[in-house]
Amino acid sequence: MTERVVLAYSGGLDTSVGIGWIAEATGAEVIAVAVDVGQGGEDLEVIRRRALDCGAVEAYVADAREEFATEYCIPALKANAMYLDRYPLVSALSRPVIVKHLVRAARQFGASTVAHGCTGKGNDQVRFEVGITSLAPDLRCLAPVRDLALTRDKAIEYANTHALPIETTKHNPFSIDQNVWGRAIETGFLEDIWNAPTKDVYTYTDDPTFPPVADEVTITFDAGVPVAIDGVAVTPLQAVQEMNRRAGAQGVGRIDIVEDRLVGIKSREVYEAPGAIALIAAHQELENVTLEREQARFKRGVEQRWTELVYDGMWFSPLKRSLDTFVDDTQRYVSGDVRMVLHGGRATVTGRRSETSLYDFNLATYDTGDTFDQSHAKGFIEIYGLTAKLAAARDVRFGNHVDLGEGELPTESTDD
Amino acid sequence: MTERVVLAYSGGLDTSVGIGWIAEATGAEVIAVAVDVGQGGEDLEVIRRRALDCGAVEAYVADAREEFATEYCIPALKANAMYLDRYPLVSALSRPVIVKHLVRAARQFGASTVAHGCTGKGNDQVRFEVGITSLAPDLRCLAPVRDLALTRDKAIEYANTHALPIETTKHNPFSIDQNVWGRAIETGFLEDIWNAPTKDVYTYTDDPTFPPVADEVTITFDAGVPVAIDGVAVTPLQAVQEMNRRAGAQGVGRIDIVEDRLVGIKSREVYEAPGAIALIAAHQELENVTLEREQARFKRGVEQRWTELVYDGMWFSPLKRSLDTFVDDTQRYVSGDVRMVLHGGRATVTGRRSETSLYDFNLATYDTGDTFDQSHAKGFIEIYGLTAKLAAARDVRFGNHVDLGEGELPTESTDD
Amino acid sequence: MTERVVLAYSGGLDTSVGIGWIAEATGAEVIAVAVDVGQGGEDLEVIRRRALDCGAVEAYVADAREEFATEYCIPALKANAMYLDRYPLVSALSRPVIVKHLVRAARQFGASTVAHGCTGKGNDQVRFEVGITSLAPDLRCLAPVRDLALTRDKAIEYANTHALPIETTKHNPFSIDQNVWGRAIETGFLEDIWNAPTKDVYTYTDDPTFPPVADEVTITFDAGVPVAIDGVAVTPLQAVQEMNRRAGAQGVGRIDIVEDRLVGIKSREVYEAPGAIALIAAHQELENVTLEREQARFKRGVEQRWTELVYDGMWFSPLKRSLDTFVDDTQRYVSGDVRMVLHGGRATVTGRRSETSLYDFNLATYDTGDTFDQSHAKGFIEIYGLTAKLAAARDVRFGNHVDLGEGELPTESTDD
Amino acid sequence: MTERVVLAYSGGLDTSVGIGWIAEATGAEVIAVAVDVGQGGEDLEVIRRRALDCGAVEAYVADAREEFATEYCIPALKANAMYLDRYPLVSALSRPVIVKHLVRAARQFGASTVAHGCTGKGNDQVRFEVGITSLAPDLRCLAPVRDLALTRDKAIEYANTHALPIETTKHNPFSIDQNVWGRAIETGFLEDIWNAPTKDVYTYTDDPTFPPVADEVTITFDAGVPVAIDGVAVTPLQAVQEMNRRAGAQGVGRIDIVEDRLVGIKSREVYEAPGAIALIAAHQELENVTLEREQARFKRGVEQRWTELVYDGMWFSPLKRSLDTFVDDTQRYVSGDVRMVLHGGRATVTGRRSETSLYDFNLATYDTGDTFDQSHAKGFIEIYGLTAKLAAARDVRFGNHVDLGEGELPTESTDD
Repeated sequence: MTERVVLAYSGGLDTSVGIGWIAEATGAEVIAVAVDVGQGGEDLEVIRRRALDCGAVEAYVADAREEFATEYCIPALKANAMYLDRYPLVSALSRPVIVKHLVRAARQFGASTVAHGCTGKGNDQVRFEVGITSLAPDLRCLAPVRDLALTRDKAIEYANTHALPIETTKHNPFSIDQNVWGRAIETGFLEDIWNAPTKDVYTYTDDPTFPPVADEVTITFDAGVPVAIDGVAVTPLQAVQEMNRRAGAQGVGRIDIVEDRLVGIKSREVYEAPGAIALIAAHQELENVTLEREQARFKRGVEQRWTELVYDGMWFSPLKRSLDTFVDDTQRYVSGDVRMVLHGGRATVTGRRSETSLYDFNLATYDTGDTFDQSHAKGFIEIYGLTAKLAAARDVRFGNHVDLGEGELPTESTDD
Repeated sequence: MTERVVLAYSGGLDTSVGIGWIAEATGAEVIAVAVDVGQGGEDLEVIRRRALDCGAVEAYVADAREEFATEYCIPALKANAMYLDRYPLVSALSRPVIVKHLVRAARQFGASTVAHGCTGKGNDQVRFEVGITSLAPDLRCLAPVRDLALTRDKAIEYANTHALPIETTKHNPFSIDQNVWGRAIETGFLEDIWNAPTKDVYTYTDDPTFPPVADEVTITFDAGVPVAIDGVAVTPLQAVQEMNRRAGAQGVGRIDIVEDRLVGIKSREVYEAPGAIALIAAHQELENVTLEREQARFKRGVEQRWTELVYDGMWFSPLKRSLDTFVDDTQRYVSGDVRMVLHGGRATVTGRRSETSLYDFNLATYDTGDTFDQSHAKGFIEIYGLTAKLAAARDVRFGNHVDLGEGELPTESTDD
Repeated sequence: MTERVVLAYSGGLDTSVGIGWIAEATGAEVIAVAVDVGQGGEDLEVIRRRALDCGAVEAYVADAREEFATEYCIPALKANAMYLDRYPLVSALSRPVIVKHLVRAARQFGASTVAHGCTGKGNDQVRFEVGITSLAPDLRCLAPVRDLALTRDKAIEYANTHALPIETTKHNPFSIDQNVWGRAIETGFLEDIWNAPTKDVYTYTDDPTFPPVADEVTITFDAGVPVAIDGVAVTPLQAVQEMNRRAGAQGVGRIDIVEDRLVGIKSREVYEAPGAIALIAAHQELENVTLEREQARFKRGVEQRWTELVYDGMWFSPLKRSLDTFVDDTQRYVSGDVRMVLHGGRATVTGRRSETSLYDFNLATYDTGDTFDQSHAKGFIEIYGLTAKLAAARDVRFGNHVDLGEGELPTESTDD
Repeated sequence: MTERVVLAYSGGLDTSVGIGWIAEATGAEVIAVAVDVGQGGEDLEVIRRRALDCGAVEAYVADAREEFATEYCIPALKANAMYLDRYPLVSALSRPVIVKHLVRAARQFGASTVAHGCTGKGNDQVRFEVGITSLAPDLRCLAPVRDLALTRDKAIEYANTHALPIETTKHNPFSIDQNVWGRAIETGFLEDIWNAPTKDVYTYTDDPTFPPVADEVTITFDAGVPVAIDGVAVTPLQAVQEMNRRAGAQGVGRIDIVEDRLVGIKSREVYEAPGAIALIAAHQELENVTLEREQARFKRGVEQRWTELVYDGMWFSPLKRSLDTFVDDTQRYVSGDVRMVLHGGRATVTGRRSETSLYDFNLATYDTGDTFDQSHAKGFIEIYGLTAKLAAARDVRFGNHVDLGEGELPTESTDD
């Protein structure tokens, strides 16, 4: 039986040429799979037809938008996932859901190999291949750009020679990856990290310098999941889409960062993620109101590790899944409303209310109704500070105390 | 010899009355110490005189501004200290430097006790008392508001009876603490956490809704410390002040958060910290460029613990000091320029350049000059993903593999 | 209606006197509850009768042994809980199950207060009271020894005056707390931390210096839980008891440590926990065989925090429960046999076998059958070491490279 | 000029054949460097001569024993470095000091390449190559066994053909690596992880089953470094050697573990490290006495990361060096005496005394002289437990409280 290869197909030059290139290099039949994670752009049926025209024996479009939002974006939101405290994991999140559909197709079509269009110096090759091996350890991986030396020049020549139905003349200077959670932009100009992004790199966000009137929005969460916006029930996908639209219109969620890639190099990345940034800000503040202090403190370390693992391509790893159980358990009471003002690039929480809040007005107020018993403070401070006191006494004993400064202080008597 | 008490004196009603109140309750002489941490407001010489008029036997003003910036704000900047990822430790930072001057005064004036004006339900009482015991385990602490039940009504009555030179009629609804690193605002209206802050709570920042033209600034760091702004050399104090002025004018650095107090309650806090927020954003991005990946990843956990310790009043604790050595060691190469645009509440990094950068254009570029050897990627991925692969094979063996979804995929043959 | 107080009753002098002491001080009726956590010693029916004779209006014995083993010891085993890497949480584990039974009794008997016999300087008062407030925030706590100043001398006088049926003449120099998971011993002699424990402090373990012949045991785990010993099915309680017997006979599990109490002081503690120590050693090694590397590495941090929380009285806290979900998720594959030799104070794992093992003989062997593809290593090392290489190149550039040592090396030519 | 290669030379078959093999494959001259890290065994001058006889153009022996003990073993001791809580990093510690001497030789002899005898599936290849690139990013690495496919059979054939002065007939079934910090043993028999080690695998330790009389030893530390044993001043090297001798005679320090290699596989390893195990046990207990609680708790996480980094070949990495500064800062007061009994495989601390102790007899004692003010406890517990209490009240409100068990409790009245 002929070998079969499932190819992650984008409709672009590299993967279009890849179909024939793989077939020639390996003798295998190529099945093209395009996964819709909300990237927008070209009609996917057109893309599917193109794959067949380029020589794929089968071509398949998987609509993974709702699945992506529910099973990938929402866990990231629960984990407040921000790589380097800034980047909400745009590409890193979509790779595992694409991988899942590739593997599903491989099983369905009896393929032994999964191919992708990544180069050999990025994170995505790792995310694809470790993802694939984590779902199907028996499948092989192939990256024509990397493994079969499919350069851009060769691709253009191949497309022209074979009259493939794909544009080869116009070179897009931007390398873009986008999905419903956000949009990543790389371009040669930005490789000089002193250069500022130009206005034309952005499409998910309008210029925050000239915002329309402020937009106030109330997001309702249930156990960490956004379930309504301004009182209207939404699915996870709708929540992200709606917030993309409204926060994007206010220029919220532009990110410009030098980041550490898994393959050991630093790279400069520009992102737009208006919905993600606004939702995470709202979710974090609702957690401030509903999580117990020590749970919240430990969760930060879990969030960091979760984010690193996902960035590093370990979505399906045992540790990532164990961390998910922790995060899910913390979300039980993360329910309530958060009111935000979206304006001029800012997503600012201005109010929060929750039946499951741990904020207790009567304990917090300095006004009438105060129920906090201040008589406990003295004993608390004495015992709480005891280890520091004992350590300080030792410092004094050994002459290692903090230097208090030198010289006489001015006194009233010297004034007179 | 008469007992002496050093009182942390602010010039306000509570501590003014506290002078006589302590004297009457304990029979001690009171020495009033006002510490200038850049809080602005009243003339400190006036405050000093008022203390004497209220019965202090000595009154002393310590100018701790440069010391506060250099020894307290800069370490916080190096640690990117943001409690709950949002709040740059305004009050928590100033307490230890005030404590140091109180203890110094206690030693100079032969006092056995240090007093402060805090209530029994906040963090500051803990920061004062644990700080004092950490510098001088032999000193006693006294909090008249908490320990001697000095309520506001009693304070007004006392001030009127004793004709103290202090305003008692006007009740300021805001409880404010401010220093050069920022400003903290509490007020009854905000104790309802659904209420948004009103415009009148802010003084360090102008309204970001109506910003002046964008302000571009270049901050030069040397080993983590800001040493020049737009090419002009600055001291740490000048750096913070200048950034307060410029970022404040653009409405940068307003914070509205429900936070976890050390004493176990959640409270709603509003802060302004324009300089701190802008400097930390610049410093973090310079770290992105200059720290090795694993060093940066571990540093986040250190930053969190550092921040918690300082928030929790443990500035002088052994762990805090050991963490300082870690942080300082990471800063060796955090040198270079960061260009930011300050505008409309945003402090956005647009460029960074550093001789000590680990960003390598030739490794990062996808253009000509690429020196990254992509042939290593395959081997890397195989070994990097091996533990996940083995775990996945076990999942498959035991039927615990990820569900790939059900149903036939549409195929070309079914189309036809 | 008369107030009622539920007292944690041990049958000893303090709590026997406490019955009357509480009644006199508060006017309440006292219900005595003794909880059997496998502490052995006196017959619990005798103890129950004594409580009634001392004035309790009700007395109740709860047999919590199986519950304690299953719901408290087993989670500790899954978490490899060793405070300071040494102490398997003997007393800290039993407090929450006792608390649960006290609260249950309080509800059943309509009590408003729960009392315990702890002093004011130990951990157990915190574990009792935070535990109680975590199950029943409305209940009050009372500690007669601490709050009602019930000293030993006063207790003896009270017992004699009231002719209580309790021995008062013999003063036991040892303060003991024991349960099925272990035994804690404090005594004045050991408060000098230079003194070694004497032989008479131990009862759970025989002297390891003169062991009987070595005892080989095979423990079978299922998802982290010991389910068979030498092929014979056991309940959790039986597993702990059997291992106490066999490891105890070999002198395994004696611990002598200076530990950090929650109340800020260091104290010297001696423990015996033969079963716990042997079971944890076996469990850890089975985890070495069955956990994925990153899961195992992160779990260590979780284990430490879990252990600190439980030591610090936070058994019922939200964070502790979220950590439990993480730990439980890691245990899915911790199944198989561990063979140990118990002898002369040592519990040494000598073999492990598991169907869910991640140890792969063919990958590990250096012999025929090796399936590890060494050709991947070069690429792995290049990329794995890249961040260190870039950092090193910077060190060299700035003259901060590692000093290689000075002076000429001897060479063959200088020999000749 | 002829290329030169510095080879890490052990004197064994592989590296002896490697000399000629490298020369033939690359045309380079080979300089053999043997580094003495206390591995014992053959006379190093004999080894040096053999290298020359096998074709090396230069051969050099570096006595790195004192340096290894002081700059590598002592930092590991300060960090209580135990991989997987069991293995004190025997081989992982020696690699960086060997690397340093290889690089030094490469600089001295003008070599462009450093070679080592490791295979492609172990940790040591990574430690060598990442170490080399971390000291000299310009040097190339070569591993003849891995890169030039130098198998054992080929090595024997080559040695016979070329009449090399090396034994080829006797195949040692054990693969051994040893240094003054310990000894690592691999052998085919142990690759079945159910098999127990046989007695003949051990040489650093005598059988703990038949120990001589117990040996009591007092170790004096100064700032974390052992400086005297039984009152006699020792260098770090002498401390380790003396403890190897005395603890080894008692069978202390045998380790049998399945461990996670950096290259993604689990392997079974047997170690002996009598001195390391005894010294770490003593050091840990002295830390229990001298470190402040929070410093000690955070240090555990640092220790784990330090140990992982060193195990993973990152000795010279920026993070490892920053962690060193943290660890060093914690050691300031880790001074004093620890008394241990070495016997029957056990190294048991029986006493500790330190002028810098934080153990305070008067705070700890339950006897006369108690200075702990128990009146603070109530206030402490109230505030300490407040977050748990608020969370519990919420659980109750939402019906998520802990299940207290069902059914009527037996009461006295039902008895009667």
